[in-house]
Amino acid sequence: MSASSVIQFWFDFASTYSYPAAMRVEEVALHSGCTVQWVPFVLGAIFRDQGWNDSPFNIYPAKGRYMWRDLERLCAGLELPFRKPSQFPRNSLPAARIACLAEADWIAKFIRKVYTANFAEDLDIAQPTVLLNCLDGLVADPAALLAVARGRDAKSRLRHNTESAMEQGIFGAPTFVTGNELFWGNDRLEAALEWSRGVSTLRH
Amino acid sequence: MSASSVIQFWFDFASTYSYPAAMRVEEVALHSGCTVQWVPFVLGAIFRDQGWNDSPFNIYPAKGRYMWRDLERLCAGLELPFRKPSQFPRNSLPAARIACLAEADWIAKFIRKVYTANFAEDLDIAQPTVLLNCLDGLVADPAALLAVARGRDAKSRLRHNTESAMEQGIFGAPTFVTGNELFWGNDRLEAALEWSRGVSTLRH
Repeated sequence: MSASSVIQFWFDFASTYSYPAAMRVEEVALHSGCTVQWVPFVLGAIFRDQGWNDSPFNIYPAKGRYMWRDLERLCAGLELPFRKPSQFPRNSLPAARIACLAEADWIAKFIRKVYTANFAEDLDIAQPTVLLNCLDGLVADPAALLAVARGRDAKSRLRHNTESAMEQGIFGAPTFVTGNELFWGNDRLEAALEWSRGVSTLRH
Repeated sequence: MSASSVIQFWFDFASTYSYPAAMRVEEVALHSGCTVQWVPFVLGAIFRDQGWNDSPFNIYPAKGRYMWRDLERLCAGLELPFRKPSQFPRNSLPAARIACLAEADWIAKFIRKVYTANFAEDLDIAQPTVLLNCLDGLVADPAALLAVARGRDAKSRLRHNTESAMEQGIFGAPTFVTGNELFWGNDRLEAALEWSRGVSTLRH
């Protein structure tokens, strides 16, 4: 096999099940000979399109109660720290815009730091101090990047991703995309990788 | 281990992901030393409680399109026959009432026959002829059972299950219950069984 296959990871920093998925996707993909392409998008915009102005986990209480318990169990099983955020969903736009500007050598680390801040440390990921902390050690000038991330280019990239998500029929996060196939949910990562391997076997 | 643990399988015959789950739950559970307790309930009543008068797969088209493709992929992977039902969701009440009366030695077979009729043979599972066919070879007098299933006792049992589902916070199907833990979705069967084994190891 000369070329490795690529799996796209479509995520929103406010999305709960994207937390365990983001923390494990790179390692699990590596074991399958896959590389990860990180694609931040705005889940809230897709929810609004479906008529929701809040997370379905808040709109439908039984679903929400189940999700928090399930997430707690999942994280315990993966030995991932978890603390239920005191605010949900959190404003994920500032962090998502930074992710849109991130470079290949630090994007994964940044993403995991933001998810950890939101779901393990109960920190407000819209706060500049929290984001500066997440960028610390990854880029030479975190403050300068934060400023650029407030600019038109970052906003436009994020909007583009969100429109692209809608066009592809993405309706939730995390979503894994391989070829033209969507796999929705943390628990479908393995199925997505298996599909990706199959496609890649057919190709090479 | 003297006693095997029990996993409850909460299902509705109209539920799409309950089809692969119903077809494989008994065999997979057996490998884990678990027995299955089948619990039919009315998902539509729970949906109405959430303000939906149709399946969310019909209300939210992107979600629906994904689900049908995903189900097709899943069934192919499990080598289960699949044909997209020409009517969705189908009226599952008559079949569910029969399941409420079913006995231990044939309930699993009946359930798999009904799911196969709905999702592999595109048959209307509310039709007496289809249900008689599903009962054929399982009970001495299918027509008599069909008549009893129209009676007050069967209706009352199904209503009781649905109320019990609501009280436990069940909001979708399939749901696996072990101890006080809920696991929602076909792809959580293995996690439910693992939990069940853990509990059972602690107990014995």
